[in-house]
Amino acid sequence: MDLHINNILNDLKKDDFQAYLLTQFTNVEYISNYKPTSFAFCIIKEEPIIYASGMDMELANRDSTIEVKEYETFGAIVDDLKREGIKNLAIEPKLPFSTYIRFRDDFSIDSKTYIDKQRMIKTPGEIQKITKATEIAQKSFLQLDISNNKSTEKEIAFDLVRYMIENGASKESFDTIVASGPNSSLPHAMPQDNTLNQPVLIDWGALFEGYCSDNTRTMVYTERQHEIWDIVCQSHDKAIKAIRPGVKCCEIDKVARDIIADYGYGDNFIHSTGHGVGLDIHEYPGFSPRDDTIIEEGMVITVEPGIYLEGEFGVRLEDTIEITKKGRVIGNLPLNIE
Amino acid sequence: MDLHINNILNDLKKDDFQAYLLTQFTNVEYISNYKPTSFAFCIIKEEPIIYASGMDMELANRDSTIEVKEYETFGAIVDDLKREGIKNLAIEPKLPFSTYIRFRDDFSIDSKTYIDKQRMIKTPGEIQKITKATEIAQKSFLQLDISNNKSTEKEIAFDLVRYMIENGASKESFDTIVASGPNSSLPHAMPQDNTLNQPVLIDWGALFEGYCSDNTRTMVYTERQHEIWDIVCQSHDKAIKAIRPGVKCCEIDKVARDIIADYGYGDNFIHSTGHGVGLDIHEYPGFSPRDDTIIEEGMVITVEPGIYLEGEFGVRLEDTIEITKKGRVIGNLPLNIE
Repeated sequence: MDLHINNILNDLKKDDFQAYLLTQFTNVEYISNYKPTSFAFCIIKEEPIIYASGMDMELANRDSTIEVKEYETFGAIVDDLKREGIKNLAIEPKLPFSTYIRFRDDFSIDSKTYIDKQRMIKTPGEIQKITKATEIAQKSFLQLDISNNKSTEKEIAFDLVRYMIENGASKESFDTIVASGPNSSLPHAMPQDNTLNQPVLIDWGALFEGYCSDNTRTMVYTERQHEIWDIVCQSHDKAIKAIRPGVKCCEIDKVARDIIADYGYGDNFIHSTGHGVGLDIHEYPGFSPRDDTIIEEGMVITVEPGIYLEGEFGVRLEDTIEITKKGRVIGNLPLNIE
Repeated sequence: MDLHINNILNDLKKDDFQAYLLTQFTNVEYISNYKPTSFAFCIIKEEPIIYASGMDMELANRDSTIEVKEYETFGAIVDDLKREGIKNLAIEPKLPFSTYIRFRDDFSIDSKTYIDKQRMIKTPGEIQKITKATEIAQKSFLQLDISNNKSTEKEIAFDLVRYMIENGASKESFDTIVASGPNSSLPHAMPQDNTLNQPVLIDWGALFEGYCSDNTRTMVYTERQHEIWDIVCQSHDKAIKAIRPGVKCCEIDKVARDIIADYGYGDNFIHSTGHGVGLDIHEYPGFSPRDDTIIEEGMVITVEPGIYLEGEFGVRLEDTIEITKKGRVIGNLPLNIE
């Protein structure tokens, strides 16, 4: 039996649950290596099983490391579970309400974060894939030509995705952000049809064998832009230096946030300092003011402070950090891109 | 007040609910024109409001047609609602369980499909956007060169996305499928690194001003492939001919399915005949055996029968249909691509 499944079985036992229902595609993929393309119900119990959509059966039979059965109805799943004597059921926190109500009359149910907690700690194999995704993404970034003054944000984003795929990514790990000039003050800006203004903020990542990378660089030009960039850079560097096992996530957020606040831009740092990365681009834990998770070896978390000046511009610098004895930056792309 | 909101307020009144909580990004977009890039809580009531993430405030203030407030805590939302005397709360069916439990102690809660039902019926403006998305996607498809025998599935998929963006799409409306040879028997295949085999199945769409298009064509070569293609084509055509307001969705599915079954391939048609299309690529209603929704004018639904022969190949043909007095195919791309 797989280590991940065993750990979760132990969690279930500890809390007197008999089974755990997962439906998020990356949770199913994490447990079974089969990533659904339609719906699926993965139930972790002594004999784990996935009920897959009929249209996914060829794929599921090919990829899954655990038993797969074709989904018929919710009633059939309920009957199977009752036949095995299952009376209480843990569910993933994000399970849709409409799925929850299919089970609530027949089982004692509560949501449990076993899977999220398990996924926080990456195996060496997972870290290898995140590292490879990062290398592909960073190599591709260096192939870009943003100095020609003629490309649009959309074209640069498009080139970057093409390079990543040519370099071995299966696709981008999230919608590539190329935001320039005033557009860069939107943290999640969509690339537009305008030619590049200054500064140029690029937030991008590759997906490699299911795993995401995540980086941001901002190319600055004027004195004012450099001034803001320097503050963000200080915040980025000091936060990374503060990372080590045993420290709380919110403490790292505080390190990053205090520096920006000290320069008077506290209200312009409008998001968390970072988030976990793995099969999903946003995972637990987060370097956020409210997350008191203790940092552990094997976690992979971004550090991405930013300052956003509405109507002017924004600067963000992001690296993805593997927690070892300290914080190790994945990849080797300089922060300072000329 | 917006028509969509008014209709939903009427639904709420009818069922004695005082407010309706939505968090899915396209639901929030549908109600307010603001599409979140982080989390958001949209509450429809006499004075509708959105609690947006701090990092989205610039975007939300720019795009939203209804009031926006910065999210602080769940407790603050609960307090606001209680202060207005709200005691019962309808929620969207897909609301995550973890969000539901933040509200369940303070309100009487049930999930309601008001928003899904409202979104089923498209306005002329919405149909225009879906039509434009379809035109962009079909024009782009015709720019492809799949006859050179040297391109890989990934390259063809990549070219298609580039053409769509150049032709005015903001992006692809879902992961483009280019599946050839035996890969085409997976309905949701991911493009691979192999050069094109035969047949070639392409399932693609453009996103234009938030709205999706969806089409599939399969290019066949051998006699056996043509034989299967002809059956799928018959199923596709007869299903579209059967569409008219007043008929149940499952009856259209039956028309498509019976033809394929009559030829002995019933077990190889492993998905529904179609699904609604709009802001999301999969919406209600569906042409599926279990959906007894009555077809109405203004709906937009795909018809996409397929036959999948594991180890051999698959054929699918898909058009998106606007329901008028009958079923009107959106776009004008021939089924038979040479």
